[in-house]
Amino acid sequence: MKSLHRPDLYTWSTFDAERNVDFNSIAWVRADGNVLIDPLPLSEHDWSHLQSLGGAAFIVITNSDHIRDAAAIAQKTGAQLLGPQAEQSTFPVPCDRWLKNGDEVVPGLEVLALNGSKTPGELALVLEDLTLITGDLVRAHRANALMLLPDAKLKDKAAAIASVQRLADLEQIETVLVGDGWSIFQHGHQYLQALVPTFASVA
Amino acid sequence: MKSLHRPDLYTWSTFDAERNVDFNSIAWVRADGNVLIDPLPLSEHDWSHLQSLGGAAFIVITNSDHIRDAAAIAQKTGAQLLGPQAEQSTFPVPCDRWLKNGDEVVPGLEVLALNGSKTPGELALVLEDLTLITGDLVRAHRANALMLLPDAKLKDKAAAIASVQRLADLEQIETVLVGDGWSIFQHGHQYLQALVPTFASVA
Repeated sequence: MKSLHRPDLYTWSTFDAERNVDFNSIAWVRADGNVLIDPLPLSEHDWSHLQSLGGAAFIVITNSDHIRDAAAIAQKTGAQLLGPQAEQSTFPVPCDRWLKNGDEVVPGLEVLALNGSKTPGELALVLEDLTLITGDLVRAHRANALMLLPDAKLKDKAAAIASVQRLADLEQIETVLVGDGWSIFQHGHQYLQALVPTFASVA
Repeated sequence: MKSLHRPDLYTWSTFDAERNVDFNSIAWVRADGNVLIDPLPLSEHDWSHLQSLGGAAFIVITNSDHIRDAAAIAQKTGAQLLGPQAEQSTFPVPCDRWLKNGDEVVPGLEVLALNGSKTPGELALVLEDLTLITGDLVRAHRANALMLLPDAKLKDKAAAIASVQRLADLEQIETVLVGDGWSIFQHGHQYLQALVPTFASVA
């Protein structure tokens, strides 16, 4: 796994030829059990690396299009699976906990549930105030610029705008780790703010 | 290939399990012939993508440890190979041109030859004043921080420091695209400056 901007954060990626971006997964290593977010299949090397760092106790799936290898990894590690509460009735994987806006995955990892995206209640996570982790709604198909899921994939554009505005209101965000594409490591708040007028102007 | 911060720049990567970083290659797409820098093997998908953008006319190899797939790609595309002049007598691949400090690969792409790194005259490139492209000496094994090649690999530490100081003196640099690891997309000049005292303090 690759080292992110904090010594306790790692990522691994798979190139998606359809969109020409990397899909990304995150591991947060912590004394009370590691947290994986939207885990892709791990290579043998990355699996050994993860094991050497303590395996996984919790796996958060931000939305039903990001199941990836979560179920198999949960089975191998014994990790709990956590999914978005708004998808509970139709979620393709049985979860141990269902997350809604305002919940905490574990102390320091807060849940935001977003509206209007391609699935209901898509999860975003805030790690210790400074790092935002997104699933599908906020993404980056080119380096150094965030973007939103294309209009055609949004269920309710006005609701999505309102949700992105909530992310843009998080003034302390420095880093935005995206599930799909290029993450931002400086001035994340400004990049999120830049999303809103762009988006609103075409609403 | 993945889209970088300019619409005419692309990258492709291979994960290196020994260092837990991505190795990166760059394609600069231009009307007078595309330039590839330290090209890794291309997947079939990325090869088609590159062909759709015009193939390659020039391939720059920054140092003899970054040959990667350059020779084979040159053969397939008909591109000229360009290597560091200071390695001319021992370079493992025959080059069409040998680059020294102050040369231009093509208009807008300037050559800096660095001293003291693991190979003599390692090349760095400056693209239109704002984007620095490095081979081995300047790298990033974790996100959001540049680092230098470890001491054990440097041939002459004082000379390497002096070369990095020259990079840190390029005040307009916004982006630093590294051959090994995590690139920097904002305030590149500051990240380069931060390298010098760190390095000098342990000299």
